Amino acid sequence: MRTHYVKDATDGETVTLAGWVHELRDVGKIKFLILRDKTGLMQLTMKGASCPPDVLAVYSKLVKETAITATGIVKKSGIASLGLEMFPTAIQVVGEVFKQVPFELTGKVPADLDVRLDNRFVDLRRIETSAVFKIRSEVQRAFREKCVELGCQEINTPSIVGSSTEGGADLFKVKYFEKDAFLAQSPQLYKQLAVIGGMDKVFMTVPVFRAEKHNTLQHLNEVTQMDVELGFADDNDALDYLETVFLHILASVKNNWAAELKTLGAGIGEYDEIPRYTYTQAVDALANAGMPMEWGSDFTKEAESKIPEALGADLFFITRWPTQCRAFYSMPLEENPAVCKAYDLVYKGLEIASGAQRIHHPDLLVKQLKAHDLKPANFESYIDAFRYGAIPHAGWSIGSERLTMQLCGLHNIREASLFPRDRHRLHP
Amino acid sequence: MRTHYVKDATDGETVTLAGWVHELRDVGKIKFLILRDKTGLMQLTMKGASCPPDVLAVYSKLVKETAITATGIVKKSGIASLGLEMFPTAIQVVGEVFKQVPFELTGKVPADLDVRLDNRFVDLRRIETSAVFKIRSEVQRAFREKCVELGCQEINTPSIVGSSTEGGADLFKVKYFEKDAFLAQSPQLYKQLAVIGGMDKVFMTVPVFRAEKHNTLQHLNEVTQMDVELGFADDNDALDYLETVFLHILASVKNNWAAELKTLGAGIGEYDEIPRYTYTQAVDALANAGMPMEWGSDFTKEAESKIPEALGADLFFITRWPTQCRAFYSMPLEENPAVCKAYDLVYKGLEIASGAQRIHHPDLLVKQLKAHDLKPANFESYIDAFRYGAIPHAGWSIGSERLTMQLCGLHNIREASLFPRDRHRLHP
Repeated sequence: MRTHYVKDATDGETVTLAGWVHELRDVGKIKFLILRDKTGLMQLTMKGASCPPDVLAVYSKLVKETAITATGIVKKSGIASLGLEMFPTAIQVVGEVFKQVPFELTGKVPADLDVRLDNRFVDLRRIETSAVFKIRSEVQRAFREKCVELGCQEINTPSIVGSSTEGGADLFKVKYFEKDAFLAQSPQLYKQLAVIGGMDKVFMTVPVFRAEKHNTLQHLNEVTQMDVELGFADDNDALDYLETVFLHILASVKNNWAAELKTLGAGIGEYDEIPRYTYTQAVDALANAGMPMEWGSDFTKEAESKIPEALGADLFFITRWPTQCRAFYSMPLEENPAVCKAYDLVYKGLEIASGAQRIHHPDLLVKQLKAHDLKPANFESYIDAFRYGAIPHAGWSIGSERLTMQLCGLHNIREASLFPRDRHRLHP
Repeated sequence: MRTHYVKDATDGETVTLAGWVHELRDVGKIKFLILRDKTGLMQLTMKGASCPPDVLAVYSKLVKETAITATGIVKKSGIASLGLEMFPTAIQVVGEVFKQVPFELTGKVPADLDVRLDNRFVDLRRIETSAVFKIRSEVQRAFREKCVELGCQEINTPSIVGSSTEGGADLFKVKYFEKDAFLAQSPQLYKQLAVIGGMDKVFMTVPVFRAEKHNTLQHLNEVTQMDVELGFADDNDALDYLETVFLHILASVKNNWAAELKTLGAGIGEYDEIPRYTYTQAVDALANAGMPMEWGSDFTKEAESKIPEALGADLFFITRWPTQCRAFYSMPLEENPAVCKAYDLVYKGLEIASGAQRIHHPDLLVKQLKAHDLKPANFESYIDAFRYGAIPHAGWSIGSERLTMQLCGLHNIREASLFPRDRHRLHP
């Protein structure tokens, strides 16, 4: 239906564009139409004398957000704010507007996020929203590109599971034929099984489900994780991988979507490496900055947001967490089992990724389950998997929505999800 | 932990390998160990006189499937069936075997599929199973590679939905806080909303859930789809895209995983294009082949498996289906509304992909919902999305498991899913 996208149309060419009526301005003998497609905006200029009458007839019936195709010659323009204008010889309506569009798309009248999310099929036409999802798409592309380059293989793990995978509460229950099942909180145990099963290095993008009742700006009940798990690897190997993959994602977004970052008023710094601080160093830095906390507990949201200032960095790892803070399968340090080989990645004050070396000894697993007040009997088939030549392994998980949120400078994680699911939102 | 994978070790090098004990053979003064990693098998040769005593001491305690690392020099061998052998100077156990491995991995004693699936973490170490999942990973990689090259953008759609998306039964119900929700049967309506929302061309890999009680060799209750949806496009545009993407997947698997296809005894032909037959042509061809059927019904499984012979092709499209056979949102043909712009891709006798141009007129949508005995009132918010400049659009979906199954020559779709979910299988 189109011969060109807006961004590919150049001076002197005759092109057919396809998109939506972004703006209309009729100043008598000259009529203007701004056409918007995924790639940009084009001014269509119709001068009464030189414009075919049937084009003017179509124009007279147009309203904003009508979908059209338009054919004509493109010319440089000293006046059009976009640098180019098109003189249409044909305009065809391909998608009519039957109802008033629920909110203004040009940004002249801001709309509430709830209204935008209720009408996501309209909101996506906003240039800012479009930029967010181009960046999100790039995050996943760059993630997979580097994983494949590093020799990882993609796997798919199930969303429907027979029992809790992490031993916690906060699961969504599913009626599965005659049985009860649950939605997976995490692909954790499955990716471990894949690696123990000899797949060596795996990656995945996977939806996970958390039935937590919180209502915050950083949590959703369904999100997409980007996971890696490495066999014959320890925590430092996994940290090196995460550093490589994460820096590649940042560089890819920065290099390939500069205009979109600019549209969003967002920026990405230059990073050659990601510094590594221990949990204890972070606690000490917070104390030095006048924010003392007890060693052994997780950082509060407020503390987390202060760590960058205290450490003097906006992108860093926190390693060697208190064992009791982390999931039961995190490998304790041999020389000091109060601390484990777990780590988080913090970017601009928000935890974006986390991981650990996993326990691969069945006896140690039983011990740590008990230390976390979990019943080994409930994990028997999982523990059993470690009895047949289980190898040292480590991995991590990046939250797609959180990373997109931070890259785009968004204040609410709902803006980073196409159709967010929170406690109250199930539609569309 | 390793310096090399087996496939990268060459004559004369000193390397450290990491993997599992695949075979052990002690013939007195010479002892052999076959080490298996993700990339292949290596013979370790230990001659009593020239082998360090501590290596022999470790060897004496090894059992099959112990995970080890082994360091030594690699040499060409005229005797070792693998062409190379390694003379270890060190062997370290990194993963012990505590229980008898539940079935024989070298293939000498075949194991039932149920036993293999119950112990997938062991089954994945079989060379044949490993080959299947390398090919499945390549299918997804090649799919996305071509989609990005064609200018599509990736999206993620929700798995938890507030109501049925296709109007059918067979949904899994989820307890979602105070409400009932469902697992998505298809991302259909969401990808349409994305395209109507101006995203233009989108792709995705997404889990879908079907609460159907069948128990066949071609169906699972949770599968991964690979979807595309194109804006400003009709059925022929979408068919061209599917042809391009599908041929790229076939060529990528064929070129990059030839050894794995050989391991599985599977082959992929050479295809320059995918021929297109109408439903009516397929029905006629079946009648000519002595298998008459009524025009207007779907093909039975038996008929589907006969069409390749009747048409003389093992890869083809079937287009222009009876409107009543297909989902309500399939666009009827203007000149003959009994037929619609839907299509299937059949490979080696199995439907692998299907799609259609979608209805983008709200009035026609209401009409077709009624014709399919569905209540427009239940689809009001969906229909509403088509009232704000909805554009012509078309798309399709490839079933990852079905395609993997056909590429690998598997008889049961469960073999193409890492952790399959069927009516009876929820674990692991």
